[in-house]
Amino acid sequence: MQNLNSEVRSAVITNGAIQLTWTLGQISHLGTYWLRDNCPCSLCRHPGNGQKLYEIVDLPRELSPREAFLAENQTLKVVWSDGHRSSYTQDWLIAHDLSEQARAARRPQVQLWRGDMAASLPAGDWPTVVADPVAELAWLERFSALGFGLLKNVPTEPGAVAEVGDRLGFVRVTNYGRLFDVKSVPNPTNLAYTAVGLGVHSDNPYRHPSPGVQLLHCLESEAPGGDTLLVDGFAAAEILRQEDTVAFELLTTLPMTFHYADGQTDLVAQQTLISVNRDGTVTGVHFNNRSADWLDAPAELTEDWYAAYIQFGRILKRPELELVFRLEPGQCLVMQNDRTLHGRTAFDPNLGRRYLQGCYIDRDAMDSRRRVLRRTITTPFTYLPPPQPARALATAA
Amino acid sequence: MQNLNSEVRSAVITNGAIQLTWTLGQISHLGTYWLRDNCPCSLCRHPGNGQKLYEIVDLPRELSPREAFLAENQTLKVVWSDGHRSSYTQDWLIAHDLSEQARAARRPQVQLWRGDMAASLPAGDWPTVVADPVAELAWLERFSALGFGLLKNVPTEPGAVAEVGDRLGFVRVTNYGRLFDVKSVPNPTNLAYTAVGLGVHSDNPYRHPSPGVQLLHCLESEAPGGDTLLVDGFAAAEILRQEDTVAFELLTTLPMTFHYADGQTDLVAQQTLISVNRDGTVTGVHFNNRSADWLDAPAELTEDWYAAYIQFGRILKRPELELVFRLEPGQCLVMQNDRTLHGRTAFDPNLGRRYLQGCYIDRDAMDSRRRVLRRTITTPFTYLPPPQPARALATAA
Repeated sequence: MQNLNSEVRSAVITNGAIQLTWTLGQISHLGTYWLRDNCPCSLCRHPGNGQKLYEIVDLPRELSPREAFLAENQTLKVVWSDGHRSSYTQDWLIAHDLSEQARAARRPQVQLWRGDMAASLPAGDWPTVVADPVAELAWLERFSALGFGLLKNVPTEPGAVAEVGDRLGFVRVTNYGRLFDVKSVPNPTNLAYTAVGLGVHSDNPYRHPSPGVQLLHCLESEAPGGDTLLVDGFAAAEILRQEDTVAFELLTTLPMTFHYADGQTDLVAQQTLISVNRDGTVTGVHFNNRSADWLDAPAELTEDWYAAYIQFGRILKRPELELVFRLEPGQCLVMQNDRTLHGRTAFDPNLGRRYLQGCYIDRDAMDSRRRVLRRTITTPFTYLPPPQPARALATAA
Repeated sequence: MQNLNSEVRSAVITNGAIQLTWTLGQISHLGTYWLRDNCPCSLCRHPGNGQKLYEIVDLPRELSPREAFLAENQTLKVVWSDGHRSSYTQDWLIAHDLSEQARAARRPQVQLWRGDMAASLPAGDWPTVVADPVAELAWLERFSALGFGLLKNVPTEPGAVAEVGDRLGFVRVTNYGRLFDVKSVPNPTNLAYTAVGLGVHSDNPYRHPSPGVQLLHCLESEAPGGDTLLVDGFAAAEILRQEDTVAFELLTTLPMTFHYADGQTDLVAQQTLISVNRDGTVTGVHFNNRSADWLDAPAELTEDWYAAYIQFGRILKRPELELVFRLEPGQCLVMQNDRTLHGRTAFDPNLGRRYLQGCYIDRDAMDSRRRVLRRTITTPFTYLPPPQPARALATAA
């Protein structure tokens, strides 16, 4: 990859634009307005926070580089047609290289997983994570790569989950309050506290925006059964893409209407079950049988869409994708809600109590914290190669 | 529109699927899985909250309607191949008609606006909105159609803005806290409290998700100048689409990287400046000169993208789009942050104080409240025709 191994060799102006040549021979053409808008000088950007100090319409209507040359340490110096001067370090030029390879290398590195990782859960000791930035960063990096993480030794006190949420980010209050109870008591009188198994799902897809991260904290788990099920929604989406491109395409383009209503609430949101960005990278999975309301789509597409929906639902049920483990009291599960789907096996509420508390936060604060810690800490964590690539997962199924 | 004026005349099974004929002669083909998944019976959906009680993979692999006929009040009755029986009222069939006209009629009705509406601001009296659900619904309907609203007679006490936020929805806490100060004092010593004008912008596009709604509450406004500027980002986007389809397309597909960093924070998010849904309807505008960091896009597209960005920036500066008014103490401006862009004119901080407080909430809670109120209240509010359609706006500019 050019941007990782190469140095800038020369800079010239060709056809009115700046052309960089790298030592390995590759050539970059730097767009004039693109480059100028990236000028790092203290007239253009606030030295403290990097915010731009001018408006985009303030740039000259006619703009071109008058001079371009390499100075000390391969720093690119530019004198513009309006007399403004800009400097771009070689590090900056490498980090902002727009070649296809460099752009691909910058994409977030996610690590797909399946059920066989039960023995190596991404766990951290909560008191250590709070006290030691190195441990915190290592846990955050694994969370970011895998889409979930486990915290151990969280105090088994009601309300502790919201304190964890406010340490990792900021609790997002909803109509359910700052936190919610998932509670089953022996011989329940209210059917809402059922003990049936729950298929894997995302929480609250009827919300806009739907929660980015869910926390589930175990306070009691005496009842036999009630194990936690997790499935990597991104891995499942890649399997669908491998097995049926048309089905994948339908689920990424036609949104489902999700709905939740009670006496005080009436939440409706449309979401595609699978979201992709312009590169085709999967960026989100929203799957929830219970709150899937109806499909408002062209009539001629509904049956193909439903076939795709059922197919995706069946992939999510494949035993080899299911990570099953028992959440013990004092453990808090933290899940990227638009990637890691969760459910539970059935349990017997007559033989013991089961009591979880949950809350929602957003992911940007966790990502922000990870970036801040990275400024000063080199983490010993390295991304593991996926246990098996998505293609192998698909053919094995 | 068929779904508004027609009744169901007949239901037959043709080629294994149900065909409805409406009194005006139109025909609907109801997809088998689509229709079955919409079964409203109490075995399929929880009677209280409408949540589905089965999983999508539980539906039979082979499914077809065995009988279909119209019963009393044109209710469609279906007996399925697995013996399950479903009933769909005519009202339901009309509300869920998938014809192109019916689908178009269901799209959210937004009302584009421009600067000439200064005399008819969508204002409500806060104590009345709190006490009277009819007034509350009328205010919410206008907010929803226009993308902003004004509340008068909010107590001029610090912190009141968060109370308003928690009444309209739920305050979203961020790294700035539950609320933030926009304060200027005479002879400021800190340049952060500058008095320069600010071009219109969205707040926090570097956040994921970015805030859905912003509140700005005026506590003091003695300084000359400092008027509020608002621009309807949706109207501006429609103008760009009219004037330059290619530029519009670029801004809807290539995302800008927005960034904010300080000692404790490092927030990065990629957003397209204009978002559209599958129908091409504009669903979001994110514009912020200051936190626009850099464009990570294929090199050959950057200059065209920048031309589009500058063009959009110039449209947002057109005086006829700018709604200018003075926010007085006790007034709280509530803005849909991904539609209504806000800025301010310059002011003289040496001649008086200017003190606003702001906070963020999400829009789903406001939409939920509007739907709940609509269950029992018929609002006297009706959508006004836009002062001028987007096309006329574009050609007038």
